[in-house]
Amino acid sequence: MKAENGYRLWLRYDKVSDPVKLENYRSHINQVVVEGPSAIMNAVRNELDMALSGLLDKKTDFADKPLPGNILIAGTPESSAMIVSLKIDKNRMESLGNEGFYIFSTKTSKFNAIVITANTDIGILYGTFHFLQLIQTGKDISRLEIIDAPDVRHRLLNHWDNLNRTVERGYAGFSLWQWHTLPEYIDQRYIDYARANASVGINGTVLTNVNANAEILTPEYLAKVAALANAFRPYGLKVYLTARFSAPMEIGGLKTADPLDQKVIEWWKQKADEIYSFIPDFGGFLVKANSEGQPGPQNYNRSHAEGANLLARAVKPYGGIVMWRAFVYSNEEPEDRAKQAYNEFKPLDGKFEDNVIIQVKNGAIDFQPREPFHPLFGAMSSTPVMMEFQVTQEYLGQGIHLTYLAPLYTECLDADTYAKGPGSYVSKVIDGTLFDDTLTAIAGVSNIGNDINWTGNPIAQSNWYALGRLAWDPGENPESIADEWIRMTYSSDEDVVAGMKKIMMMSREAGVNYRTPLGLHHQMAWHHHYGPGPWIKDKPRADWTSAYYNRADKNGIGFDRTKTGSNAVGQYFPPLDSIFGTPESCPEEYLLWFHHVNWNYKMNSGRTLWDELCHKYSEGVEQVKDMQQSWEELKDKIDDERFTHVQSLLKIQLQDATEWRNACILYFQTFSGMPVPAGLEKPDKSLEYYIKKERKYLPGSLM
Amino acid sequence: MKAENGYRLWLRYDKVSDPVKLENYRSHINQVVVEGPSAIMNAVRNELDMALSGLLDKKTDFADKPLPGNILIAGTPESSAMIVSLKIDKNRMESLGNEGFYIFSTKTSKFNAIVITANTDIGILYGTFHFLQLIQTGKDISRLEIIDAPDVRHRLLNHWDNLNRTVERGYAGFSLWQWHTLPEYIDQRYIDYARANASVGINGTVLTNVNANAEILTPEYLAKVAALANAFRPYGLKVYLTARFSAPMEIGGLKTADPLDQKVIEWWKQKADEIYSFIPDFGGFLVKANSEGQPGPQNYNRSHAEGANLLARAVKPYGGIVMWRAFVYSNEEPEDRAKQAYNEFKPLDGKFEDNVIIQVKNGAIDFQPREPFHPLFGAMSSTPVMMEFQVTQEYLGQGIHLTYLAPLYTECLDADTYAKGPGSYVSKVIDGTLFDDTLTAIAGVSNIGNDINWTGNPIAQSNWYALGRLAWDPGENPESIADEWIRMTYSSDEDVVAGMKKIMMMSREAGVNYRTPLGLHHQMAWHHHYGPGPWIKDKPRADWTSAYYNRADKNGIGFDRTKTGSNAVGQYFPPLDSIFGTPESCPEEYLLWFHHVNWNYKMNSGRTLWDELCHKYSEGVEQVKDMQQSWEELKDKIDDERFTHVQSLLKIQLQDATEWRNACILYFQTFSGMPVPAGLEKPDKSLEYYIKKERKYLPGSLM
Repeated sequence: MKAENGYRLWLRYDKVSDPVKLENYRSHINQVVVEGPSAIMNAVRNELDMALSGLLDKKTDFADKPLPGNILIAGTPESSAMIVSLKIDKNRMESLGNEGFYIFSTKTSKFNAIVITANTDIGILYGTFHFLQLIQTGKDISRLEIIDAPDVRHRLLNHWDNLNRTVERGYAGFSLWQWHTLPEYIDQRYIDYARANASVGINGTVLTNVNANAEILTPEYLAKVAALANAFRPYGLKVYLTARFSAPMEIGGLKTADPLDQKVIEWWKQKADEIYSFIPDFGGFLVKANSEGQPGPQNYNRSHAEGANLLARAVKPYGGIVMWRAFVYSNEEPEDRAKQAYNEFKPLDGKFEDNVIIQVKNGAIDFQPREPFHPLFGAMSSTPVMMEFQVTQEYLGQGIHLTYLAPLYTECLDADTYAKGPGSYVSKVIDGTLFDDTLTAIAGVSNIGNDINWTGNPIAQSNWYALGRLAWDPGENPESIADEWIRMTYSSDEDVVAGMKKIMMMSREAGVNYRTPLGLHHQMAWHHHYGPGPWIKDKPRADWTSAYYNRADKNGIGFDRTKTGSNAVGQYFPPLDSIFGTPESCPEEYLLWFHHVNWNYKMNSGRTLWDELCHKYSEGVEQVKDMQQSWEELKDKIDDERFTHVQSLLKIQLQDATEWRNACILYFQTFSGMPVPAGLEKPDKSLEYYIKKERKYLPGSLM
Repeated sequence: MKAENGYRLWLRYDKVSDPVKLENYRSHINQVVVEGPSAIMNAVRNELDMALSGLLDKKTDFADKPLPGNILIAGTPESSAMIVSLKIDKNRMESLGNEGFYIFSTKTSKFNAIVITANTDIGILYGTFHFLQLIQTGKDISRLEIIDAPDVRHRLLNHWDNLNRTVERGYAGFSLWQWHTLPEYIDQRYIDYARANASVGINGTVLTNVNANAEILTPEYLAKVAALANAFRPYGLKVYLTARFSAPMEIGGLKTADPLDQKVIEWWKQKADEIYSFIPDFGGFLVKANSEGQPGPQNYNRSHAEGANLLARAVKPYGGIVMWRAFVYSNEEPEDRAKQAYNEFKPLDGKFEDNVIIQVKNGAIDFQPREPFHPLFGAMSSTPVMMEFQVTQEYLGQGIHLTYLAPLYTECLDADTYAKGPGSYVSKVIDGTLFDDTLTAIAGVSNIGNDINWTGNPIAQSNWYALGRLAWDPGENPESIADEWIRMTYSSDEDVVAGMKKIMMMSREAGVNYRTPLGLHHQMAWHHHYGPGPWIKDKPRADWTSAYYNRADKNGIGFDRTKTGSNAVGQYFPPLDSIFGTPESCPEEYLLWFHHVNWNYKMNSGRTLWDELCHKYSEGVEQVKDMQQSWEELKDKIDDERFTHVQSLLKIQLQDATEWRNACILYFQTFSGMPVPAGLEKPDKSLEYYIKKERKYLPGSLM
């Protein structure tokens, strides 16, 4: 089968393979009318031209005055006389808001028309991508009636990209941003990046690493940022930057960055003026402050609120926002790192400017394979809170392991915080309905680099896709997202769809099982986050070690976060505090997150905790074998290049999963003193072998 | 015009656009017969299939027993009965050697045949690429009679690629080698890399940086290297590694790396055994020793010969070679860095094992825009000497400036060393004819990275191409190489060919003019080699500064390397020593390389040296404008993506060229005290502006 290098992502637009469907689609679209002069409407025209000429394998006939027959119309009431003539119900149009769209079939005296309309040009673009998706996934387009609008206002990617083009936690090559050749050179890739984002509704991108570099705020770099913003604008993609809190000192020549200092206030105000003179629709700032060595307001004994408000006031006149990260931990070692963000931010609720939103990771530790939802969700009733998911797989196999993340995302979004009683889902915090927030956002830490296929692992493209789809609609179903993505990116062959969906849907649970089952977390190696290191201890900070989190001893294993322990359970609303706080009612997938449990503790399966742990580790490895086998069955139905790529990476994944299982079982066995249960594969190497095993030059670290 | 991302290099195989030629080519190739079962012959089949089905836009009909008519036959007398039946003259076949090929048209009772034959399968592959090139460049194939064989045995790329995937002096992204997913995953790109190399006759690749890391010699990495070697083997591409001299200590646990120590000798022997157990056709080692901080034999008071022979004896049983770099300079500051390599190596002539070859950069300093040929060429009559060119443009605009390097390469190859009287060209040293060497080689420091188009600047692909073509035949003409490359990579439209050829052929001279005209050298900035820094002085080592090389003062400018100076001229054979050693006979392009010359010195043009210098700098800038204008004229004849890319980079190049000119003129003016001649553009900024200008995060450095 013809090789595919993956560059086209899910926007492949190959000819519809089913001849009946092809004929049907063709018959519905004899001519295309796109009315409106804007850059966005040009993007609509370009996309329709490229897509339809590919999908339908015939030249797209754009007409101002179409002949009677079957046509596709795209336009807003404002720019299109044809749309106006259709007299669409005003309430319906109003319900679409600024970004929604309405696609419907209609009949006039002259035409059978498919209509894509919206209140804004960007709504048209989103509707266009949705319409194309219908064809790409083989749907019937004969009687359309689709209304869709995003539930969340800001849907963003966070790029942890450095100015030297390395990417922190990047596993797909260098940064896309070629600062050295900006602003002069606009790589076609920038435009394709914007197209891909628009196609899944992503409308913002933070270009720079949260471990920030003040240089990006100098005029030299702002000119470069402006060039990117210009390239992205026709796709509705706004540009944001990370702000280094100490920038007034580093590039402004001030002696302090104290947020209450008048000169500092003035400096940020002028800096905002300057930024907006370069980029009139600049989105705002993302800030990591007083965390992992980054400077922040606490350096001056000021609060996070005082820090955030400083920047917020500077960008407010222009409509900019500040996304202030809650991922903080102080230089002093805490009682329980899981509690810190809540402890710091909860007391500040209501003290932020109204263009500040607190960006909270899905869990309280750090993008682990599984964490209970972050207790800050629901806890801030007077301050908008947004979601930070990780798309790059820092702890989930990086560029290698096949891990479809949508189930992880929805597990968090679907969790009930009980903040205002049952049904207070995290998704309702995020979409603003729980506390009537109008400033709402979801961000994903990007997995994109300059690899030809953008994401390293071919399947990792699906995580970019899913992030966009769930940011648009946090209620979307991971399985149907996978279904769409597979059909668009690989094939609508039902064996391929079923096989890939099976693999993708089991992949995250497999990753939890072979790494950190039953609520374990943060068990990775010291210098990297790729392989196992449950034995890591005695390091400069206890809360950077595995032993701190697993607390394995002769009696058992797990972190006591109940009232008798760190009482992290107390950060959750009732009845969650007691559900999580009691081993019997605590969901087993979180058991060792909240409890130190005896090796002989009886699990729901009837097994002892030790036996269950061994079974879970083994199950993870078996699941990878299962994924491998399912992939092999698709050999003749997937192009060689991507088939071989995934096949090869699964081989490595199986080795790694086995290593995780063996290393962890052998290490924890030194405490439990119990044998690996009968019927399970036994580790074939010694614990020392795994402890001594070094991995160097892992991607994303340069070390 | 349809966008092209450059991935396909010069192997695009798009349908022949001229319908008459297309019909003609089709008529010559009704069927194809490729006889021979080897992996290389499979590569021949694959390439012919891909290429002919593209170029001729019809399915390639491979037949074992072809029907009477017009056929293409490829095979060796050993593997092909049809070839045997043609009874080709034995002397002719012998003249082809191990890698040459013979392409001819013939007629039998049943067939009109085009025949590609050789003594070896790899000869067939080279012949196949040559034959395809005839079609790609629109040549007549009706009466073929082509014999070709390489003049140089080892034709290599040197990758300065680190194990963390950064590339030293790499301006096109990360390293191609994804060590982390090897040996399991063989990226299609590895194969396309090998195809591209084979298509220009490159038969060896050194995978790792000369600033070497011993880890590459551990079994874990050797397994990865073996996987690459397996992928490259069907394309005749051998794998080599850089050897870190201290490896016996770093990965072998020895206390010394003394080349005369018995344990060290044994360690390298065993290491060689191990390497060849992984890679039976491993090519050998490239070594940078006792240079820029790298360890070497001199750490133990042993000579370069003793060091090289240590490794050479280890690989000799397997047919391996050692390429020992002459680019050395000691930690002590020398009287004249240009003299060092000669002084160190000339006395060792004849003391090396016969599988050692000394790898010498084209000039005595370091890949400057222009240098006289290295005095070691011709000086070693009893030791093979090979050429090291730089393909990556470290001092020639890196990933940005359009610089076609073939004229630089041939300037050196065509230089007469006079070692054995007139006609003792450098090329004759390199191809072994001057001193009857059978071990011959040319290497080029690669400009390849993981950018989609491989080389960053689209035109930089031509330097990879030219390196291969000149390594195969050092007598090739830069202009005809450019002609071929343009036709294959862009278009055979005569306007495109003429326009691009003009731009490419003037580009290197432009680069010399705006940077370092009249023999100036090493005038770049301190932290990078991209922009100007003629003012750099007072650094830890004088010979790392610009002032050391320009010696500008009130009296004049230039480095006195005559008898009254460092006497570097004495390292050249007569009459060159006096030609170079006398200002009047010294070619003006080398004037300031060899002489300190008064500002009022009268040049051939009739101008003073100062005026001439200003004119040369200005000429460089004007040439870039000329290149820009010529490029603009091709707008409608080149695809948008590559057109815009080159256009944008030329814009940056003009800014940079102007900066070089202004900065250098302003600085040197502080010594000459003379005005910029009338009619020339005057610098519009102050010297201070240029001195203060910082460039950070330049590609290839991470700083």
